[in-house]
Amino acid sequence: MGISRRNFLTAVGSAGGYGALYTTMMGLGLLAAPRAYAGAPKLPAGSGAGRSVAILGAGIAGLVAAYELRKAGYAVTVLEARDRPGGRAWSVRSGSKIIQTGRPDQVVDWAEGKHAYFNAGPARIPQWHHAILGYCQELGVPLEVMVNANRSAKLDFAGQVVTEGRAVNDTRGAFTELLAKAVDKGALDQELTGVDKQKLLGYLSAYGDLSKDNVYAGSTRAGFTASPGGYDHPPKGGDPLRMVDMMKSRFWGASLIFEEIIDMQATMLQPVGGMDRISYALYEQVKPAVKFEAVVKQLRKTKKGVRIVYADASGEHALDADFCICTIPLPVLSKIPSDFSPRVKQAIAAAEYHHGTKVAWETRRFWEQDDFQYGGLGWTDEANELVWYPSGGIGEKTGILVGAYSIGFSGPDSPPRYAGMSFDERFALSRKVIEKFHPGKGQELAKPFTVSWMQTPYNEGVAVGWKDEQRATDYAELCKPDGPFYFAGEHMSYINAWQEGAALSSHEAIKLIQARVSAA
Amino acid sequence: MGISRRNFLTAVGSAGGYGALYTTMMGLGLLAAPRAYAGAPKLPAGSGAGRSVAILGAGIAGLVAAYELRKAGYAVTVLEARDRPGGRAWSVRSGSKIIQTGRPDQVVDWAEGKHAYFNAGPARIPQWHHAILGYCQELGVPLEVMVNANRSAKLDFAGQVVTEGRAVNDTRGAFTELLAKAVDKGALDQELTGVDKQKLLGYLSAYGDLSKDNVYAGSTRAGFTASPGGYDHPPKGGDPLRMVDMMKSRFWGASLIFEEIIDMQATMLQPVGGMDRISYALYEQVKPAVKFEAVVKQLRKTKKGVRIVYADASGEHALDADFCICTIPLPVLSKIPSDFSPRVKQAIAAAEYHHGTKVAWETRRFWEQDDFQYGGLGWTDEANELVWYPSGGIGEKTGILVGAYSIGFSGPDSPPRYAGMSFDERFALSRKVIEKFHPGKGQELAKPFTVSWMQTPYNEGVAVGWKDEQRATDYAELCKPDGPFYFAGEHMSYINAWQEGAALSSHEAIKLIQARVSAA
Ligand SMILES: Cc1cc2nc3c(=O)[nH]c(=O)nc-3n(C[C@H](O)[C@H](O)[C@H](O)COP(=O)(O)OP(=O)(O)OC[C@H]3O[C@@H](n4cnc5c(N)ncnc54)[C@H](O)[C@@H]3O)c2cc1C
Ligand SMILES: Cc1cc2nc3c(=O)[nH]c(=O)nc-3n(C[C@H](O)[C@H](O)[C@H](O)COP(=O)(O)OP(=O)(O)OC[C@H]3O[C@@H](n4cnc5c(N)ncnc54)[C@H](O)[C@@H]3O)c2cc1C
Repeated sequence: MGISRRNFLTAVGSAGGYGALYTTMMGLGLLAAPRAYAGAPKLPAGSGAGRSVAILGAGIAGLVAAYELRKAGYAVTVLEARDRPGGRAWSVRSGSKIIQTGRPDQVVDWAEGKHAYFNAGPARIPQWHHAILGYCQELGVPLEVMVNANRSAKLDFAGQVVTEGRAVNDTRGAFTELLAKAVDKGALDQELTGVDKQKLLGYLSAYGDLSKDNVYAGSTRAGFTASPGGYDHPPKGGDPLRMVDMMKSRFWGASLIFEEIIDMQATMLQPVGGMDRISYALYEQVKPAVKFEAVVKQLRKTKKGVRIVYADASGEHALDADFCICTIPLPVLSKIPSDFSPRVKQAIAAAEYHHGTKVAWETRRFWEQDDFQYGGLGWTDEANELVWYPSGGIGEKTGILVGAYSIGFSGPDSPPRYAGMSFDERFALSRKVIEKFHPGKGQELAKPFTVSWMQTPYNEGVAVGWKDEQRATDYAELCKPDGPFYFAGEHMSYINAWQEGAALSSHEAIKLIQARVSAA
Repeated sequence: MGISRRNFLTAVGSAGGYGALYTTMMGLGLLAAPRAYAGAPKLPAGSGAGRSVAILGAGIAGLVAAYELRKAGYAVTVLEARDRPGGRAWSVRSGSKIIQTGRPDQVVDWAEGKHAYFNAGPARIPQWHHAILGYCQELGVPLEVMVNANRSAKLDFAGQVVTEGRAVNDTRGAFTELLAKAVDKGALDQELTGVDKQKLLGYLSAYGDLSKDNVYAGSTRAGFTASPGGYDHPPKGGDPLRMVDMMKSRFWGASLIFEEIIDMQATMLQPVGGMDRISYALYEQVKPAVKFEAVVKQLRKTKKGVRIVYADASGEHALDADFCICTIPLPVLSKIPSDFSPRVKQAIAAAEYHHGTKVAWETRRFWEQDDFQYGGLGWTDEANELVWYPSGGIGEKTGILVGAYSIGFSGPDSPPRYAGMSFDERFALSRKVIEKFHPGKGQELAKPFTVSWMQTPYNEGVAVGWKDEQRATDYAELCKPDGPFYFAGEHMSYINAWQEGAALSSHEAIKLIQARVSAA
């Protein structure tokens, strides 16, 4: 819009000082870019010849390990309890069967369609996840932009609904007004030694969209009460939220800062057609090595290496190998009989995993068609926590709307509470919140399905939650091989609850195996 | 990432106070959502029967007017000087001819491809542009997300290159530290009457990612110096930029606030395959009414209505009609002989138009393949101002990279300076800045083309720049019909330099015509 663009330029012009051009910036030597990602470890070709590795689990960690080891000539067998690759990277579609411990089975009966999927697990990739994005490039997995922050999305703000744009910009305005006043009255003179105060006030005025006298009196950045238009329709902005009121909302903080977490920063990406496209692309590369519906029952050490006892439809079998990379999630692993050392068993048992529950609906895309909102996250302090609008399939008639993602954004109490609800209670709460965001539309939501990860066999949790102090103890213990056993999976990384962590943990494991093999 | 997510929750938890749940927010009555867009004016069916309208120009304004008037039965003729619809909404592709006054002609010789286009004019649509998005829905124009803010994109910060994420988050950190100190030392006690200071300090700590004692000591939000990984690879963050240094950059303000301008806020959209897809979709609806390569030469009033004299390949012709909607840009219109009233002529002549110049290259998508950056804008205080990465065609081998968009983001001096350069000078500067953002890659840029809107016949400027005081004088004059002549186009709106303004201005014009017809 002309007006705001001009105001913006004027503000920035007077603030930034056009004369400041080409001045040199000091003290930036430390800003070297982080090491570029060099790709997966390049194991020497043929270096694995004659060596066998049993890989337990065909999630991202297992698939990555299998893919890289096979490149180097290792004989790999992947044992996977489920009938599909991907593990937590699970995109639910028409026909998918959802099994939850102690709950009724669900069979998804949505219409089919390229974008008619529900990412029950992972659903976004930040740009700095170079290993995962590197595999997408290497294997030709098509990506598209995933919208994490949408200024038109709604926040359920302690019972009142406001747009993200209003919350973000009224907060910025309120804080900037306060800061400008403190600067102006000299309260920060000590802290601002060497800083041009008038110039700083100019910046602040642009930063918070302050009016004269350093007052934040509302901004069109927070939205219009009447949009500008043709002829005699100038824009009208509303009065801002008052800080005392904003502070009453439990969610004030979370929703405003979320998008700046390094994992959540734009540009976020997603594979076209569902997150499982990455796992399937890796799986295509290692297909002959994978046994599905093969449930690991025992992990044994032998003279030569490992013996893995597993069960499939035809009974129990033993798989012998020189080494094993075990990616089984720790709550599951802790219950499987093994020859692990007592210290390793203790470390496995000590890992705590998080709750996480999602709900998805099939529905007309009313948020686009009626409300002109495209993608993004709606936030609520109810136990379902999030409404997640699809970034794919924009403009289609119907879509899959994620109406709950309860994982602790609003605090630790919601996820267990939401997971504890009956399916119908979960659906009812999800519908209620969507109705708040889109009055009258709640009734259009149909065919809900739900996945709760603590109730999901072979996972029993969203992801590990290492305590800081465990990094030097339990975690460090698992970073060392236990004889022929190497651990991998998101839990074996500093990027927990992300596919990147799973991939990079396997890179570490295969480096250790390779070092051992070449030293032998 | 686990760590930052947990820190984040802890911070927000202690800040927001879980006990604050379900408190009621006061004073929000004023937050009514803006009026929903009710669609284009619904002219009564058949109400235009027997009435003729000459529409001058087949840009968005002319096409929208033609489309809506024809629905109501008006006999419409659209005269368009060019050989294509869309006007400024121009997507340049293989084979496009670019004519610039006083400069050599260019014929684009890029490879063909769905995403191998260069939006020489408009390239993004904000969500609140309901008229334009409404036409996309009505006419089935596929849309996709356009990335306006990318925290991995680079800023050329007074000669030093930093990421947007670092600039944004170090600025926020520095400001929040100052504010927290002022609050802590009681300097704002008067302004904070009724506010829980401890709770506010908690919020601020999360907002700016402050460490204890309200110090901003850097944040992983600003990027890592070493990314976290598997096993023994914890994350490392760098020291923050110092405020005194940041203030030296002319661009500090602009780039940080840009994404919060209501026109620029996420989610931004673009038609799949080029912005001209919207104009072509409208054109498909009104095709029989449009005469291309018909240059308006005179605008006359007659007893019955208007007589438009125009020239085409076969010579001069006259078109008679009851009414005329003139969407010709004012710098062009001011030079066409007409029967407009002296006051209207004066208003037309008084309009000032902005400079705007773009450059586009065909190149390997090295920003994705080598640097894991997907879409977004890179900012420079050099005269080319912007590097604009494509949001479409992610993952393809090559793409069209916009290496200049000089329109005054960094101040009023760059656009005329950049437009004044020779093509080769423009290309050289663009290449230099891209090389700064992506060392070693400048040499991969090939086949540059450039469009400067002040040098573009039938436009002679990017868009109008009404001065505030002109709204009540010149602009108001043009909002009234001059006899049978009605004015439309982006210049006849409060949303200048946007397609939305052009569309909504035509909605106003046809409402006035309809009122006159039904009163007759
Ligand atoms: C709700 C949710 C949201 C998430 N969001 C994101 C996100 O947006 N982006 C992102 O990148 N990551 C996200 N993650 C994290 C990501 O999914 C995981 O970090 C990653 O997929 C873990 O891969 P893995 O190989 O370590 O484990 P898994 O994928 O769990 O693989 C382990 C495998 O072992 C198998 N297994 C278990 N027991 C046995 C047995 N006894 N015998 C044989 N096989 C067995 C399992 O079936 C499974 O296939 C999310 C996860 C969840 C649950
Ligand atoms: C560089 C640039 C970037 C922009 N960015 C955006 C953006 O991101 N998003 C957005 O929505 N908008 C953007 N805009 C603005 C948008 O392009 C315009 O507001 C809109 O397209 C104007 O439509 P119009 O119909 O008013 O004018 P035009 O499109 O200019 O149409 C006027 C028509 O009149 C014709 N004409 C002129 N003289 C004569 C004559 N003598 N006889 C016959 N016909 C004649 C012209 O050929 C032209 O087709 C941008 C514009 C530019 C130039």
